Amino acid sequence: MDDLKIAQQCAETMLANDRSSQAMGISIEIVEPGKAIARMRVRDDMLNGFAVIHGGLTFALADTAFAFACNSYDQQSFAAAAQIEFLRPAVATDVLTATASEDYRGRRNGYYTVEVRNQRDELVALFRGRSASNSKPVIQS
Amino acid sequence: MDDLKIAQQCAETMLANDRSSQAMGISIEIVEPGKAIARMRVRDDMLNGFAVIHGGLTFALADTAFAFACNSYDQQSFAAAAQIEFLRPAVATDVLTATASEDYRGRRNGYYTVEVRNQRDELVALFRGRSASNSKPVIQS
Amino acid sequence: MDDLKIAQQCAETMLANDRSSQAMGISIEIVEPGKAIARMRVRDDMLNGFAVIHGGLTFALADTAFAFACNSYDQQSFAAAAQIEFLRPAVATDVLTATASEDYRGRRNGYYTVEVRNQRDELVALFRGRSASNSKPVIQS
Amino acid sequence: MDDLKIAQQCAETMLANDRSSQAMGISIEIVEPGKAIARMRVRDDMLNGFAVIHGGLTFALADTAFAFACNSYDQQSFAAAAQIEFLRPAVATDVLTATASEDYRGRRNGYYTVEVRNQRDELVALFRGRSASNSKPVIQS
Repeated sequence: MDDLKIAQQCAETMLANDRSSQAMGISIEIVEPGKAIARMRVRDDMLNGFAVIHGGLTFALADTAFAFACNSYDQQSFAAAAQIEFLRPAVATDVLTATASEDYRGRRNGYYTVEVRNQRDELVALFRGRSASNSKPVIQS
Repeated sequence: MDDLKIAQQCAETMLANDRSSQAMGISIEIVEPGKAIARMRVRDDMLNGFAVIHGGLTFALADTAFAFACNSYDQQSFAAAAQIEFLRPAVATDVLTATASEDYRGRRNGYYTVEVRNQRDELVALFRGRSASNSKPVIQS
Repeated sequence: MDDLKIAQQCAETMLANDRSSQAMGISIEIVEPGKAIARMRVRDDMLNGFAVIHGGLTFALADTAFAFACNSYDQQSFAAAAQIEFLRPAVATDVLTATASEDYRGRRNGYYTVEVRNQRDELVALFRGRSASNSKPVIQS
Repeated sequence: MDDLKIAQQCAETMLANDRSSQAMGISIEIVEPGKAIARMRVRDDMLNGFAVIHGGLTFALADTAFAFACNSYDQQSFAAAAQIEFLRPAVATDVLTATASEDYRGRRNGYYTVEVRNQRDELVALFRGRSASNSKPVIQS
């Protein structure tokens, strides 16, 4: 099985049991190992008291892209830390695309950047995450 | 109206329209200006593919406590940036308590720390946020 | 030997070989395990092109306090990551005091906050660091 | 004057008065607006008690590259916040190269990534900075 196939199968295994991403309506695309794209449409029940998206949900979208990117090598990885800069608000019906790419991958830790953009390709948030891996496989035999 | 009353009325105004926090089942308590406590029970639809809470939702809980803390002075404030360290996983039925306190509040920016603990008082996550304020009131007349 | 004595001896061992902190004129005080105070006077050769202290040197002072705090248990620890918010500039002859305290200490990682204040007790910078430990002692027998 | 010329003249103006970068032996190269390269040789007086470079000085090098990158538009900019991940130690005589590039530049804030590599092109540290600008020029007439 080639690397892209492995990465895509990791994503399928994760998605099958990922009730939280499903509940948020997030879709995932794996384009290469270490890279993942997550998409979400901003719903009314994602808005806070100021009628913009709850920052926690923008983070959750970015975090999802990050999780699928760092788990694409068939080695279980978890978010150890993350940082987000909120650059622009998003409102109901906006479609947000989070693109995660790998900055550096060491033996135990990986470092990823995620850009979250709206349907006008404007940068909504800039996210960085550190993952920590154990030695278990993602794909169940 | 004294400062605590103002802080509590800010929270009521925000909560009334905050569909996202309601959807996550988050409850809020304001104990003093600049300090807020947010609580959430981990539901099945908050779990990711590894059967632990989606890190984005732990963040969302902390971010909610942060938002209520920085908006307690009746001056609209938004999350500008945040950072989170994930220290322990949380699983279904865990009850998470996020306590936001103020590290520093300047003219335009505020800095807050949020500790997220489980029902055994173990530290689950450590969150830091920077808020940016405008000059609009939170409480609508 | 009690815990405070151990902490102070760790600091002495580290200082003896720490040419960089000496070159910056940093002095250290250990008040309890997990807590360290570092002091530095801003010299002319610490200023950048805008006549304020080079942010890297404010960071270096905070990082020094952090290093002495996380190494106070006689277990070698290194800075793995750090974050700093610059709140106020410092100028020549200012005396900066960095106070490091422990937020959480796990098996392998420790989390510390450092406040940097000037001689008027104004907050100059807010620093957070994560340390990673190995199992070697700090104090050489 | 074209953009690159302006960027280079900003750097010259800043360097002329930057005693701290000179004291650390840092050299600067401006390759395009928003991008700067800073180089430093690790000296004995930059080592800490563990015989590796003081993390604060690795930060200072990255912060210098960042400062020259965000000041390359002839608009005074200051570091508002920064974050660093230490990935590999550096020792005496290592030559470190910090390359700052721009992730996003808004009206008042800019976001930059700096990679610090050693002479073997290994990643030593990953730095992110946020700058805040005022409306004063960098180049003095």
